Amino acid sequence: MTRFDTYFLMKPNDVAEYAKTQLDVFAPDADLEGAEIGDGNINFIFRVRDRKTGQSVIVKQAGPTARISDAFVLSTDRARIEAEILMLEARLAPGLVPVVYKYDAVMSCCVMEDLSDHEIMRAALLKHQVFPRFAEDITTFMVNTLLLTTDVVLDHQEKKRLSGRYINPELCEITEDLVYTEPFNDYKGRNDVFGPNQAWVEANLYGDAALRLEAAKLKFDFLTNGQALIHGDLHTGSIFITPESTKVIDPEFAFYGPMGYDVGNVIANLIFAWANGDATLPAGAERDAYLGWIENTIVAVVDLFNQKFLAAWAANARDVFTREPGFDRWYLDTVLRDTAGVCGLELCRRTVGLAHVKDLTSITDAAARVRAERICLTAAKDYIKQRESYRTGADFLAGMKRAIAAHST
Amino acid sequence: MTRFDTYFLMKPNDVAEYAKTQLDVFAPDADLEGAEIGDGNINFIFRVRDRKTGQSVIVKQAGPTARISDAFVLSTDRARIEAEILMLEARLAPGLVPVVYKYDAVMSCCVMEDLSDHEIMRAALLKHQVFPRFAEDITTFMVNTLLLTTDVVLDHQEKKRLSGRYINPELCEITEDLVYTEPFNDYKGRNDVFGPNQAWVEANLYGDAALRLEAAKLKFDFLTNGQALIHGDLHTGSIFITPESTKVIDPEFAFYGPMGYDVGNVIANLIFAWANGDATLPAGAERDAYLGWIENTIVAVVDLFNQKFLAAWAANARDVFTREPGFDRWYLDTVLRDTAGVCGLELCRRTVGLAHVKDLTSITDAAARVRAERICLTAAKDYIKQRESYRTGADFLAGMKRAIAAHST
Repeated sequence: MTRFDTYFLMKPNDVAEYAKTQLDVFAPDADLEGAEIGDGNINFIFRVRDRKTGQSVIVKQAGPTARISDAFVLSTDRARIEAEILMLEARLAPGLVPVVYKYDAVMSCCVMEDLSDHEIMRAALLKHQVFPRFAEDITTFMVNTLLLTTDVVLDHQEKKRLSGRYINPELCEITEDLVYTEPFNDYKGRNDVFGPNQAWVEANLYGDAALRLEAAKLKFDFLTNGQALIHGDLHTGSIFITPESTKVIDPEFAFYGPMGYDVGNVIANLIFAWANGDATLPAGAERDAYLGWIENTIVAVVDLFNQKFLAAWAANARDVFTREPGFDRWYLDTVLRDTAGVCGLELCRRTVGLAHVKDLTSITDAAARVRAERICLTAAKDYIKQRESYRTGADFLAGMKRAIAAHST
Repeated sequence: MTRFDTYFLMKPNDVAEYAKTQLDVFAPDADLEGAEIGDGNINFIFRVRDRKTGQSVIVKQAGPTARISDAFVLSTDRARIEAEILMLEARLAPGLVPVVYKYDAVMSCCVMEDLSDHEIMRAALLKHQVFPRFAEDITTFMVNTLLLTTDVVLDHQEKKRLSGRYINPELCEITEDLVYTEPFNDYKGRNDVFGPNQAWVEANLYGDAALRLEAAKLKFDFLTNGQALIHGDLHTGSIFITPESTKVIDPEFAFYGPMGYDVGNVIANLIFAWANGDATLPAGAERDAYLGWIENTIVAVVDLFNQKFLAAWAANARDVFTREPGFDRWYLDTVLRDTAGVCGLELCRRTVGLAHVKDLTSITDAAARVRAERICLTAAKDYIKQRESYRTGADFLAGMKRAIAAHST
């Protein structure tokens, strides 16, 4: 018996002792120190480091409620989901997720590779750094983790059993509320709208019945479309990055849902990065290079996703009907339609909803923030309402450009 | 310990002893006799009867393979699914399913109400009997069991947990193959086409690439659309009936799938009944009355389903978005589209696939059977390809009438 045979919420010293007694990772004479390093919304993140060698691991523990608010009571089962999904993603997309050393079902914690040499992509983008490998890496990650977990490729019975392992009712409900519902009606009164945009949001978001109807359709797709084992929270805050490496983290929202949810999140968060750069970078070469890189990356994410998707389909599709001429393209078009819709939802909810992005909130000039938010929301409405028309990277970029033109100063 | 503490496949005498020792249904001095009465494809069905009083129950046991063929290895978990679903359906649609007295997880058997005073609807239709209550009862059953298990009405977390209880990979795979794939390509060589129609089927079914593409789309909807807890096998052989009563049985194929699967099956099997009557009844009042009742019933099933669906939505819908104007009608239209598609699939697979219907196979005149099958297949192709255009009972009847006109003699 050890004190880790019964669940409790660990403090930094507990985590160091845990690493010493429960892991095979460190040398027997390691001099371990623990520290809480995360400030995420949901979980507790610690680093355990050997003072002698500098070797370190990350310990991520799930509490019985969300870290930011006891109002979100959550099953600690999310730690199992995260650990298992990271291990599955490592097989499907090698090198694009952190290595998992151990999952502890009793303590609801996961011990994994320390990526301290990487940076959270959103933070790096706020410094207007560019990442030439990103489009290549993230599209490989998405095509491999998404298409390879669908009925297109997997044995259908195996896929059904996998879907049963990752039902994830609680975290899905958070998404259903925060992403799919509240941005369009504030029915729980939790939205957090930037003051100077309040009237605009009421008129153009809450007041748009046609938009609400499309959001309702998208929500019921999210509730029922068990297409692929999606990451479920694939924004730039869930990506560790360097110019040479991309690592996707935090898959605790994973479940069988529409692929477009992941792809749309990536694109929306690139648009936020663009809006930040546009609002804060002075005219000049750095601005042009940064905004140009974001625009090229948006186009590349969509176009590389399309190319790799069709190539992976040709190489891996298994169901006999997947060889019907035109079926791959039809299927991909439904994914792109969902992608555009979700991109719009994410743009809305991160602008007016409970959980903002720093890309917008860190814009200190009020007029610039007003404009940045309206660009995001105007693009969002087009992505949602015209989602059937989005197919290529150029389509997605054009949607953003139309919104920019509508708010040109 | 009793011999029923370990699973074995029961014989009639075992079932009588089981009823004597394991049930509280019969009097202590009952004189019980068991008999196997079923000739279904999947399970073993027994009746246990008290010779003294005539009181009886049905015992349905799941074997480790399908009753008709050891080639279909099936989890006995289907007995749990059937018993639990019958109890759930009894709450949602009272009086429209048999009463369950006991489910025995060890013996994988379910003890339920004996409906010997009812007749299997397909057998009764083969005698050209009419059932004035049928459209009313089956639409109540469908709207209540389907809409009330969706995210429209259920708490979303509860719905996700329910969906996890009824994943049903093995029986779904049977449907995926037999209904959604093989009728259009015979890729397993198991189809069983009526000789004089072989060339016609090869040209008009297997040879129709556009039809195969639509079947592929419908198949992937069945694989991914976790909309409602569907019955999954709702044909006229799964319905016990009298002029005053309708009881739906055999829900072992239940899982979270598209509602249209159930509605489409009901309509397709009414069309088979029409085709049988058309091919075998001589001109006269009986013929006119029977075919007229079938046609009216097809129309009534669709129209009553529509009416009751919208009324049940108004009375029970819970998700905040379900009050958006137009969302109920949009949602219902997607169900009707799926209904038309599945109606077409069922018409195809029961005509050319592994499992035929007596409505067609019992037509002894070869020319009449050729015509009846072509009417069904021609209607099927329209239901599948034009499924977006089917909304009302009149639409569905018109689709059938066009097929009849195309093969008029």
